[in-house]
Amino acid sequence: MHSIDQYRDSFLEELNKITVDKEPKNLYEPVTYILNLGGKRLRPILTLMSADIFGADYKKGLSAAMAVEVFHNFSLVHDDIMDDAPLRRGQQTVHEKWDINTGILSGDAMLIMAYQLFENYNPITFQALAKLFSKTALEVCEGQQYDVDFETRDDVTIPEYLKMIEYKTAVLVGAAMKMGAIVAETSEENQNNIYQFGRLLGIAFQLQDDYLDAFGDPETFGKQVGGDIIENKKTYLYLKALAFLDKKDSIQLEQLFSVQLDDNSDKIETVKQYFISSGSAKATQDAIKEYTEEAFKVLDTLSIADDKKSLLKTFGTSLMTRSV
Amino acid sequence: MHSIDQYRDSFLEELNKITVDKEPKNLYEPVTYILNLGGKRLRPILTLMSADIFGADYKKGLSAAMAVEVFHNFSLVHDDIMDDAPLRRGQQTVHEKWDINTGILSGDAMLIMAYQLFENYNPITFQALAKLFSKTALEVCEGQQYDVDFETRDDVTIPEYLKMIEYKTAVLVGAAMKMGAIVAETSEENQNNIYQFGRLLGIAFQLQDDYLDAFGDPETFGKQVGGDIIENKKTYLYLKALAFLDKKDSIQLEQLFSVQLDDNSDKIETVKQYFISSGSAKATQDAIKEYTEEAFKVLDTLSIADDKKSLLKTFGTSLMTRSV
Repeated sequence: MHSIDQYRDSFLEELNKITVDKEPKNLYEPVTYILNLGGKRLRPILTLMSADIFGADYKKGLSAAMAVEVFHNFSLVHDDIMDDAPLRRGQQTVHEKWDINTGILSGDAMLIMAYQLFENYNPITFQALAKLFSKTALEVCEGQQYDVDFETRDDVTIPEYLKMIEYKTAVLVGAAMKMGAIVAETSEENQNNIYQFGRLLGIAFQLQDDYLDAFGDPETFGKQVGGDIIENKKTYLYLKALAFLDKKDSIQLEQLFSVQLDDNSDKIETVKQYFISSGSAKATQDAIKEYTEEAFKVLDTLSIADDKKSLLKTFGTSLMTRSV
Repeated sequence: MHSIDQYRDSFLEELNKITVDKEPKNLYEPVTYILNLGGKRLRPILTLMSADIFGADYKKGLSAAMAVEVFHNFSLVHDDIMDDAPLRRGQQTVHEKWDINTGILSGDAMLIMAYQLFENYNPITFQALAKLFSKTALEVCEGQQYDVDFETRDDVTIPEYLKMIEYKTAVLVGAAMKMGAIVAETSEENQNNIYQFGRLLGIAFQLQDDYLDAFGDPETFGKQVGGDIIENKKTYLYLKALAFLDKKDSIQLEQLFSVQLDDNSDKIETVKQYFISSGSAKATQDAIKEYTEEAFKVLDTLSIADDKKSLLKTFGTSLMTRSV
């Protein structure tokens, strides 16, 4: 087995190869730009780790890992247009640095480039990877659509919210790991189980994101703490609080989530108090723990050596205790 | 062999099957909408015809034909956003009927759905189709980017223009036909030759489009005659006219193509006169004829019966003598 740093280094080395000069420049420069903005590279690392765990030379997973990362960045470019976001990882978004049309077209090119990366595999593996990828990519689109739909709905339920984050975020984590398993040509059972592991961990990861957005340490959290509250985003914290609060308080909270203010410091503090007093903050932490534990339970079903299971467990735990 | 109408009917029957109710509605309704706006269905018909010609049951080509049409409509949805076009086939464009975000996301879903349609084939055929499709789709994006780039350049050359229409339009016609050949499992030589036939016919088809836009019969031409002139579009007609005219007249023509007017009737007439007097209209007709003849020459290299070659020739000729 190799270390996370080894996976990341191999991945970054591979990344440098695909972002060479291609024409037309206005199409490919934004691709190079977004792919080099950084990030945790969590998904491709998971693909390589999974290939390694199931007995393949992990480098065999590099093209699939790259496809996952290129797709993830495609979705960021198009989502940033839809969300009208000026910044991504502290830098200008593609549509802000260039324009919306460039963001649309360069994003389209990235989606196609992701599929092309599977061409490095034999036909059987190619089809397995591309099928999983298409299913996952379509679910990510559906998740994004639910997210957009939820903005203008005030009757979003907790199960609906969980389905949305599952589609928008978690299935790609599951697919990233399953791709490693496919490349390693392990049993279908192992493939499906590692997918479930990744999917459950992905849900926990997104709930953790929701939690950190409100309760993260401003010193270490990369984004503005309280960003979701400022944008009136109906996160798990918010929906759980509404469910727990009495009529009067939930109306107050809904009221707070219906305004856009210039100075948000009071709003953020009041909302966070509601999240704590209602028991929603605690319920969110419990949910994170439950999904993580469910993911760890899936590990028992994998036919791999115990030390490899511990490695996955350690990595999962480190994700759930992160502050970034 | 079957008739064009049979191919079209089979295709439309298949189309009804894929546009069923899927959730979320806001993602899939625009897909159903754009796919049912009509159109000549030229590309999918060519896929079916090609499968038929190379000895397959043409219905085996239906999924590939559908992929080509879904991709073509994906590109229309995204291009219409980029061109800020309110109408498509006389109806509201997707981003106009819904909004830009819906156009972006539904378009993304269509691109993925196109790939999924190849899953109906065995792994070898699947990989061959998906590889050709990715290469072609990326070229279509590149063609669209060149088209956008040319809007703000005044030094576009004829070879550059021809490369742009080849990428934006012609390669998909070639790929549509090659897909039929792949499905029919004919020789690689036949596959490559039918691709060249389609590509050359596609270039002729686009030049014909340029020509009809200026000189089409307003009674039968679907779009507004002179649309390209109103939008100052640098078509083959325009670039050839600039090349042929003397300094004084070419400056005049460039002048006319630098303004946006409310009433365009005088401008259209003057520009058309330049197209005729310079010899550009004639040169365009010659180029259409040359590309068509080059396409027909490729037919001789195909190892298929002569009556099938005549069929392709008849179809090609009918495209080049169209008024719509």
